[in-house]
Amino acid sequence: MLSQFNFLSQSSKPLPFSPVSLHNQTLTLHQNDAQALPFSPAINYHSVSLKTTTVSAMTSNSNLSNHAVTSNGISEPDLDRFADVGNKLADAAGEVIRKYFRKKFEIIDKEDLSPVTIADRTAEEAMVLIIQENLRSHAIFGEENGWRCTEKFADYVWVLDPIDGTKSFITGKPLFGTLIALLHKGKPILGIIDQPVLRERWIGISGKRTTLNGEEVSTRTCAKLSQAYLYTTSPHLFKGDAEEAFARVRNKVKVPLYGCDCYAYALLASGYVDLVIESGLQPYDVLALIPVIEGAGGVITDWRGDQLYWEASSDARATSFNVIAAGDKQIHQQALDVLQWQ
Amino acid sequence: MLSQFNFLSQSSKPLPFSPVSLHNQTLTLHQNDAQALPFSPAINYHSVSLKTTTVSAMTSNSNLSNHAVTSNGISEPDLDRFADVGNKLADAAGEVIRKYFRKKFEIIDKEDLSPVTIADRTAEEAMVLIIQENLRSHAIFGEENGWRCTEKFADYVWVLDPIDGTKSFITGKPLFGTLIALLHKGKPILGIIDQPVLRERWIGISGKRTTLNGEEVSTRTCAKLSQAYLYTTSPHLFKGDAEEAFARVRNKVKVPLYGCDCYAYALLASGYVDLVIESGLQPYDVLALIPVIEGAGGVITDWRGDQLYWEASSDARATSFNVIAAGDKQIHQQALDVLQWQ
Repeated sequence: MLSQFNFLSQSSKPLPFSPVSLHNQTLTLHQNDAQALPFSPAINYHSVSLKTTTVSAMTSNSNLSNHAVTSNGISEPDLDRFADVGNKLADAAGEVIRKYFRKKFEIIDKEDLSPVTIADRTAEEAMVLIIQENLRSHAIFGEENGWRCTEKFADYVWVLDPIDGTKSFITGKPLFGTLIALLHKGKPILGIIDQPVLRERWIGISGKRTTLNGEEVSTRTCAKLSQAYLYTTSPHLFKGDAEEAFARVRNKVKVPLYGCDCYAYALLASGYVDLVIESGLQPYDVLALIPVIEGAGGVITDWRGDQLYWEASSDARATSFNVIAAGDKQIHQQALDVLQWQ
Repeated sequence: MLSQFNFLSQSSKPLPFSPVSLHNQTLTLHQNDAQALPFSPAINYHSVSLKTTTVSAMTSNSNLSNHAVTSNGISEPDLDRFADVGNKLADAAGEVIRKYFRKKFEIIDKEDLSPVTIADRTAEEAMVLIIQENLRSHAIFGEENGWRCTEKFADYVWVLDPIDGTKSFITGKPLFGTLIALLHKGKPILGIIDQPVLRERWIGISGKRTTLNGEEVSTRTCAKLSQAYLYTTSPHLFKGDAEEAFARVRNKVKVPLYGCDCYAYALLASGYVDLVIESGLQPYDVLALIPVIEGAGGVITDWRGDQLYWEASSDARATSFNVIAAGDKQIHQQALDVLQWQ
């Protein structure tokens, strides 16, 4: 790992994190990682995805075969294959991002004034190439480059945000994340939140329990809003009525906290946070969160309590979501009642 | 490292970070670490502290002897000894903190409604014991237990905050820090910001260049406030006029960001952040930052531009500081002009 940081800016700043070895994610990219980090327990995502408990009513061990399908009508082998590709995408994005983290690079302000860097663009390209090589019929919607597909619509759409929390990335704060979602006929069936510097990867797969680096995680109970720990990225991301609505909830929770980007949703899935409330999120910032949160036992909806749905196609327009995620459905409902969002 | 996490709460959540080995920090506590992490380069703090460039005008290589003194009137051997003890303190606190991070524990609300945990208290006790064993004449002022000394005053005072950012710690967010300061006749001569989960340690020693894990760091230039990246922990920590003053600066910077606790000052020392502005900080949250920031070429003062000074004694009262740290003195002055603090 440390050898990646030879290309430095002002002074030598080796990143001291020595991550858990994530073996077998891609045969081409990580042979070196496997050798460089021999002390860490290997997390074999092929074996983990096959062993993960499937809660679908349609399968049982005695009936499991190559033709077993999940409740989404997708075969288990296909689902495992998609999970494997998802891991490859996160690996590839992570490789790029780690090269640029805490290095000197140009920051470009986009039309909406949000920043983007060479790391964002290169990481997205790396993911796009892998999808095109492995799943040619799948469409892709990336934050940086929009829709890519030979058709206008596709049953399967990968929705990618290479760096959610670019401002954190730019300022050397290791809590941004790579967000990867796979939609099947509009429904998120796979979601990944990956923090490539800390080497933490949350994976949610429809019908399965969410995992963090291969270990199952779970949200925690919380009966009252007044006991809840709430995260949001910034107080400045709520406009107009949304600001007032958020303030109503913020004034009722135990502790409102800031500055965690998508990592807050990951902490919620792992049971350390009770509520995350945000406004103005784009599809590529939201869709990956859904399988992760739901697979951990949590709830994630818009501010009316409705399902977060986005129509993915070549004509897809930018859609802004107000999101609330809760570890416990009790405080989810209490928060909705306080948000009073029409 | 992973073996420390056998005692888990809801589910098995091994922390994947495998930190850089920090050898020789304490002979008693880290023999195991040295063996468990063979792949990481050893950071030998004894050798680093002796090799670090001393910028004091009073010493030169040809004159260096056991009687050489720094501009503070402290001998180099003494300064090295204090740095060594400082490292031991951070090691000891880190051992405790890592045991409790992302585990289940009781959270107690103090009189001022701030939370404290067994990790805070145990980490502070561990540091106090080391100081009492190694530097008996030194006084200690800890966040949790106040003043400890046989006398009312002492030339040397250690000021300790075992966990700055307890709310981050409680919610599993690995950006809180252990803050350790050593004052000599009221002046901070040693400051440590330690992130024990990520194993990042910034050390500032009076007259020397600040280091991150043994490597020298430097703040970055920034000529205009409109180009500055600003951090503060939370918008809710500014009261009354302070809120308006902060808003004035916040509206002029390029990007206001939140949620970094003391880690923001560390990022500033390393040149990734331009400004940190906070209000209502306690002495134990401030004093350690001073040598770190100044040793990296930055500026840190109160909102009037005055030195941050705290009279440490057994009668010491709680003093609240408004703090501004800047990587570049140009934007430090510009920010002061906008704060307009009387």
